[in-house]
Amino acid sequence: MSERQQPVIGIVQRTRKSPFFEATRHWGAKAYTVYNHMLMPLYYDTPQADYWKLITGVTLWDVAVERQVEISGPDAFHLVEYLTPRDLSRCQVGQCKYIPLTAEDGGLVNDPVLLRLGEAHFWLSLADSDVLLWAKGLALGLGLNVTITEPDVSPLAVQGPKAQLVMAALFGAWVEKLGFFRFRETELAGIPLVVARSGWSKQGGFELYLRDSRYGEQLWDMIMAAGQAYDIAPAAPSGIERIESGLLSYGNDMTLAHNPFEVGLGAYCDLDKTADFIGRATLRRIKAEGVRRQLVGLELAGPERAGNEQHWPLYYQEVPSGAVTSATYSPRLQKNIALAIVTTERAKPGPPLTVDTPEGLVAATVVPLPFIDPSNK
Amino acid sequence: MSERQQPVIGIVQRTRKSPFFEATRHWGAKAYTVYNHMLMPLYYDTPQADYWKLITGVTLWDVAVERQVEISGPDAFHLVEYLTPRDLSRCQVGQCKYIPLTAEDGGLVNDPVLLRLGEAHFWLSLADSDVLLWAKGLALGLGLNVTITEPDVSPLAVQGPKAQLVMAALFGAWVEKLGFFRFRETELAGIPLVVARSGWSKQGGFELYLRDSRYGEQLWDMIMAAGQAYDIAPAAPSGIERIESGLLSYGNDMTLAHNPFEVGLGAYCDLDKTADFIGRATLRRIKAEGVRRQLVGLELAGPERAGNEQHWPLYYQEVPSGAVTSATYSPRLQKNIALAIVTTERAKPGPPLTVDTPEGLVAATVVPLPFIDPSNK
Repeated sequence: MSERQQPVIGIVQRTRKSPFFEATRHWGAKAYTVYNHMLMPLYYDTPQADYWKLITGVTLWDVAVERQVEISGPDAFHLVEYLTPRDLSRCQVGQCKYIPLTAEDGGLVNDPVLLRLGEAHFWLSLADSDVLLWAKGLALGLGLNVTITEPDVSPLAVQGPKAQLVMAALFGAWVEKLGFFRFRETELAGIPLVVARSGWSKQGGFELYLRDSRYGEQLWDMIMAAGQAYDIAPAAPSGIERIESGLLSYGNDMTLAHNPFEVGLGAYCDLDKTADFIGRATLRRIKAEGVRRQLVGLELAGPERAGNEQHWPLYYQEVPSGAVTSATYSPRLQKNIALAIVTTERAKPGPPLTVDTPEGLVAATVVPLPFIDPSNK
Repeated sequence: MSERQQPVIGIVQRTRKSPFFEATRHWGAKAYTVYNHMLMPLYYDTPQADYWKLITGVTLWDVAVERQVEISGPDAFHLVEYLTPRDLSRCQVGQCKYIPLTAEDGGLVNDPVLLRLGEAHFWLSLADSDVLLWAKGLALGLGLNVTITEPDVSPLAVQGPKAQLVMAALFGAWVEKLGFFRFRETELAGIPLVVARSGWSKQGGFELYLRDSRYGEQLWDMIMAAGQAYDIAPAAPSGIERIESGLLSYGNDMTLAHNPFEVGLGAYCDLDKTADFIGRATLRRIKAEGVRRQLVGLELAGPERAGNEQHWPLYYQEVPSGAVTSATYSPRLQKNIALAIVTTERAKPGPPLTVDTPEGLVAATVVPLPFIDPSNK
């Protein structure tokens, strides 16, 4: 497919624009995708050049597509607990939690980060599906006393080993002391923000939730100006880095057709938590019976190859045994690596599997995740 | 914005591929968008050249992005009635119905076409939002006895004045007698299909709902072969034709923030229907009080101009009075036309309004919809 001319993206009103869209065009985003009905930049230089800037320095990402579902009102906490198998009974105001959302059959509806802004005031910072409709439908059907909206909130991410330096220059010393997955409501030159130590990379960094879209370009420019001393570059969530780090992408590595135990999210399922939640009976059964397929890491043989546009079928001795969900060349490992969902009997290191790529059959072996552990740096 | 290089679209696993995707690449689709998490071709030649092929001949569209929500089971009819203000009490098996879906506040969740396949077996052929989650959330909350899935169903559209000739060559005489918004379950060389006289243009035509994605390329090729005698061309839903014809696009001209009465869909709201439905109380109040803004047609002055990538704000004597939602040049009218949502006092023909386009201010006048009525041809 790589020989074919890459098609352009149609930019129409329906594909919403983030408050940073004009800035991303100005800074030269070369490719976009659509995520939560909104355009998201994918890369500015090349995906690999952008990756090295993330690994070695600091990058600024427009992740406004992480739309928020705001849940408030007397039944807000009850609804949020009901949405996820994760136990939230000790979740504090000012805390973020990664919470897989499950359906009745255990399938994954989304895997947002929860922010608790108040005792009865939550944001779900979404992956790519309309959780707004899911939550509204549930609340209406259950007759809950909640207000559910998509507020005017648009995150930016500052990611990379030098992110803290840029953030300290902007916000002062307190931001350096902010704990992982903790946030603070604050402002910058009057621009209302939530600042969290979080982000979809393992290179360290922060997310800035802009609470008034009119200030998009001003905020972008302020971060770029403060980052100049650290050679900050525009970039985007890196498909390379996140696979190396074993971070899953909803829609790529898991969907409504997968349950948390199949994709390595069992640690976020507190099946005996006190609060009721959707899918408890099914997830208990799945946990007891064991899963039939599992997400694993793979190393693929051969020279550097392009990432996958679709699933690549996977075989063990010509028996269909799963599919590659996300593949990339790892510049740090100098190997082709991938996430794959395979039948349980193939989920451990063992004899090589065969992957059917557009360029032909390739040998692959199962390896532990993550491919690169940042704590070993 | 037109001076800037148009960015490419990132093709990743997350953006799903229709069963016709390889065919659309092979036939030279130059631009894509993402709709219901799936890639959709936008044009092959130029948007205007594709438009003329639709107006004068016959075109084949990959509209697999019109994903189906299948609702079946004892409470299926109850749920479908509950989703829409439209009265479905006389909807027959084999019939299609355009049914706006509303939320409790009257806002539009989606505007699918309903297909009744059996007394308790329905498809909602969707515009761009996750109605699967909306319907599942409601059913779970209400404790309904229904099964709700996204089946393996992928529509193609054959549209244009010569569509019937191509369809008769493929299916025989019965298809010529199929009434508007009627469908039949059938097959073609063993490929399971639903064939409906429907489609998102006013040029006449059919939709073929492929019920087994393995046959995507075979079906595409069969239609292309049968259409060769009629000079069939690959194309896509035409932004030009649908604006000329006054067809609304969910996400462009209406969203969850708009109610049916604001966007001219009042005729589909049977507020006194027997079955209960979501939003009745609010919609009754809105109807009684009258709306504060309304969708209208506009003619814009000046030479041929490009369509809009975003809303264009609209003023009356410098007072903000709404926004253009969809703009195009009409090759048949040789005028710039647009759909806009304006304050009610500006919703009738009157003194000119001013539209703030990226190329500067342009005078606009309100005109009746549709711009072109195919029954007057």
